[in-house]
Amino acid sequence: MPARLNQLDPSVPVDLAVRVTASARTTASRVSPDIDDWLREKRSQPFESSIITLTELTEPTGWRFAPDTGNLEHHSGRFFTVEGMHVRANHGHTREWWQPILVQRDIAILGIIAKEFDGVLHFLLQAKMEPGNADMVQLSPTVQATSSNYTQVHRGRRAHYVEYFTEPERGRVLVDVLQSEQGAWFHLKRNRNIVVEVTDHVPVRDDFCWLTLGQIRRLLQRRNVINMDARSVLGCLPIAAPASEPDGGDEFDGTLWHSLEPGGVHTMTEILSWFTGRKSDYQLSVRLVPLNTLVGWRRDAERILPEGRGNFSIVGVRVNARTREVHSWKQPLLAPHGLALAGLVVRRIGGMLHALVRAEVLPGYRDTVELGPTVRFMMNDYADTPADRRPEFLDHMLAAREGVRYDVVLSEEGGRFRHAETRYLIVEADDDFPMQAPPDFMWITVGQLLVLQRHSYYLSIETRTLLFCLNSL
Amino acid sequence: MPARLNQLDPSVPVDLAVRVTASARTTASRVSPDIDDWLREKRSQPFESSIITLTELTEPTGWRFAPDTGNLEHHSGRFFTVEGMHVRANHGHTREWWQPILVQRDIAILGIIAKEFDGVLHFLLQAKMEPGNADMVQLSPTVQATSSNYTQVHRGRRAHYVEYFTEPERGRVLVDVLQSEQGAWFHLKRNRNIVVEVTDHVPVRDDFCWLTLGQIRRLLQRRNVINMDARSVLGCLPIAAPASEPDGGDEFDGTLWHSLEPGGVHTMTEILSWFTGRKSDYQLSVRLVPLNTLVGWRRDAERILPEGRGNFSIVGVRVNARTREVHSWKQPLLAPHGLALAGLVVRRIGGMLHALVRAEVLPGYRDTVELGPTVRFMMNDYADTPADRRPEFLDHMLAAREGVRYDVVLSEEGGRFRHAETRYLIVEADDDFPMQAPPDFMWITVGQLLVLQRHSYYLSIETRTLLFCLNSL
Repeated sequence: MPARLNQLDPSVPVDLAVRVTASARTTASRVSPDIDDWLREKRSQPFESSIITLTELTEPTGWRFAPDTGNLEHHSGRFFTVEGMHVRANHGHTREWWQPILVQRDIAILGIIAKEFDGVLHFLLQAKMEPGNADMVQLSPTVQATSSNYTQVHRGRRAHYVEYFTEPERGRVLVDVLQSEQGAWFHLKRNRNIVVEVTDHVPVRDDFCWLTLGQIRRLLQRRNVINMDARSVLGCLPIAAPASEPDGGDEFDGTLWHSLEPGGVHTMTEILSWFTGRKSDYQLSVRLVPLNTLVGWRRDAERILPEGRGNFSIVGVRVNARTREVHSWKQPLLAPHGLALAGLVVRRIGGMLHALVRAEVLPGYRDTVELGPTVRFMMNDYADTPADRRPEFLDHMLAAREGVRYDVVLSEEGGRFRHAETRYLIVEADDDFPMQAPPDFMWITVGQLLVLQRHSYYLSIETRTLLFCLNSL
Repeated sequence: MPARLNQLDPSVPVDLAVRVTASARTTASRVSPDIDDWLREKRSQPFESSIITLTELTEPTGWRFAPDTGNLEHHSGRFFTVEGMHVRANHGHTREWWQPILVQRDIAILGIIAKEFDGVLHFLLQAKMEPGNADMVQLSPTVQATSSNYTQVHRGRRAHYVEYFTEPERGRVLVDVLQSEQGAWFHLKRNRNIVVEVTDHVPVRDDFCWLTLGQIRRLLQRRNVINMDARSVLGCLPIAAPASEPDGGDEFDGTLWHSLEPGGVHTMTEILSWFTGRKSDYQLSVRLVPLNTLVGWRRDAERILPEGRGNFSIVGVRVNARTREVHSWKQPLLAPHGLALAGLVVRRIGGMLHALVRAEVLPGYRDTVELGPTVRFMMNDYADTPADRRPEFLDHMLAAREGVRYDVVLSEEGGRFRHAETRYLIVEADDDFPMQAPPDFMWITVGQLLVLQRHSYYLSIETRTLLFCLNSL
């Protein structure tokens, strides 16, 4: 009887993992453009995004400060709002604080169309301008559309290709899951990460191109090319993890499959129980409050900013673009003060690649805790944070040299954040690194992370990006 | 290579499923009391729970109406509160409403200790009085403890056995997952459903007893014996589903395992995508508001009640008990107006047992939608609901005769609800029943439901109960 149980619905669709891995091993394709030339051309188009005063942002039309709350909102009531948040915690150095927070209630589609050419899966990406992007144009999913986009609230064009995701009969869904975004900056935000495979002809519009996962992972080695939404969606695909032998990473042999196998340091039951325990121990009381009541924040001509140094401000920008649905608009953005670090420690244990993830408590999460990277830190806090208050493993990661497996700066969502750059760092632990994980940390195999990835709200946006970068090593 | 992938970490821990199923087949044990005598004795103890006026509830101490909001809260700030809720929906007959809602932010432990006797898993249940229970005493988990219980806010005794769940080294966790409770009556409520297996001697206190799952499933045939929390926790254990042959349900042969196998009508990817799509389509805007601002509700001497007929009121009770941590207390309860129906249609398809679940939208859910039974309905609404507004499949279930597989009235949480009884009904569909499911419904195998059950917020409390009853047929 147990023998029959070996055929249980596996946690990860194996046939798909095989096809995704084959795509990851394909680095050239007759249907792709010369990606360097193509991207250079797209980036040479005239785009502008400049900071304007809050008065200019809110007059005469478009955005406004709501009379009673001071919340920053669009006259149409759509898009997103900047509101206030009051947080009380039962743990940590700071037990109570106020901050502005981005609120966006509807679920956006982050959709990628996939199609086989010459037997290899390709993904249709878009060279997309976002006002907050460091390099303006980055590669995004086929579709990034809020319901405002497809119901045409802003009177622009309907987002191209959105019908592939709203009319399910057009293709076969490969993955389709709600995932969170930055829990420090968004209130309960989640998006629909979806990949649909089609077999019919798909017209390729300007600014779109087919790429294999192998081509995409090469671009992932470059600063600010693959945008956050593309990483988020592609990171939801099951893929065979690389062999952990430094010299075997590009060989498609049996070892590639190691981490999809069972037998990590912890069973899935232990992992789920630890996660449940962390959620039970940490309590956050989170309340949206009027933006004009925030303690410790003020407004000047150009920004809503913390009275201390703080980690971010809210600014307004004016955008001029030719390729977007609307050619010119104004909007607020959240502007972080400097670079973030998202660092993941990985380690071969028993021949299997494990990642050291952290139970990360953030007020914007739907259920208090998600699995963050080993370290997530705003580097502008570094100088002012005494050594004994720095996050565990931060100094270890910053000092790492030999074990560095990935070290690239990538952008966060340029439609909501201005120049939000994160240094994504993957470090392989050496033998001196402690095996015993502190209570908020756990060693989880890459295969186990891929199982959790199929469900909502386990892996944070930074962890999803790092998992995708790790699978692309 | 695919051959090796058969050994993927299975979605359900198989070894545990085998042991749980063995316990379910054991209907007598030398360590259990004569359960009828034992329960009769426990139920003969003097308990009282009587409705008091709201003035008596709130004076002189204990509970109060907060001066600014009119919210009903305990002076200590703990336990739970009765607040107001304002809901706006983008779908359905009623697009906007106000209602009282129970708010309880901390996570309670619903814990059961498991232990093998004579090689068979037994579960330590408690005969527990709850003020809202129809028959006062029902069988509950070993521990039902809010953090108020184990931090002793109400100056009572610490809950017995709670250390087995707060000190993990005492046993081995079999399951540990946060699950929601009634999304129509609780705001974002979730509890920790946990089973810990121990090998050391466990002292059995008064009001506690060891039962096999086979004994428990016999009690599940009786009205109001197994309480909601016990059903919720035990329903999280993996168990092999019964064969769907009516005469084979009690035979432990290969067919018992059918529904743990793959190959239902839908793949797991299709199920997850449908679930994601339902969450994307349904929008609810939910806001907590002061209880004294609710449109359509009023207060009389004894209750907070709807101006129309409505589905429930809020009342106060005074309790006298000898076996609880505190011997006498007052508290509010939510009192439903009459019986609820939770009905599940099941069907053999391709030899596998499928359940027809519904994407149920409720304002108290953490992420808008969970998988409810085929039908959930407050029967007091029946007469006033025109036939074309009744839930799909309601009349089918009420008319069912031959296909009825389970039909027992069970209680919901007696610590928060007064005489909240639900008729749990499982009906096997005949050949006339449509195979094509409407958009909000999906046929899911019992094995697939057990996979989802390992994660939070897929299966509603009623669906978990029905799954447990189904596995106990």
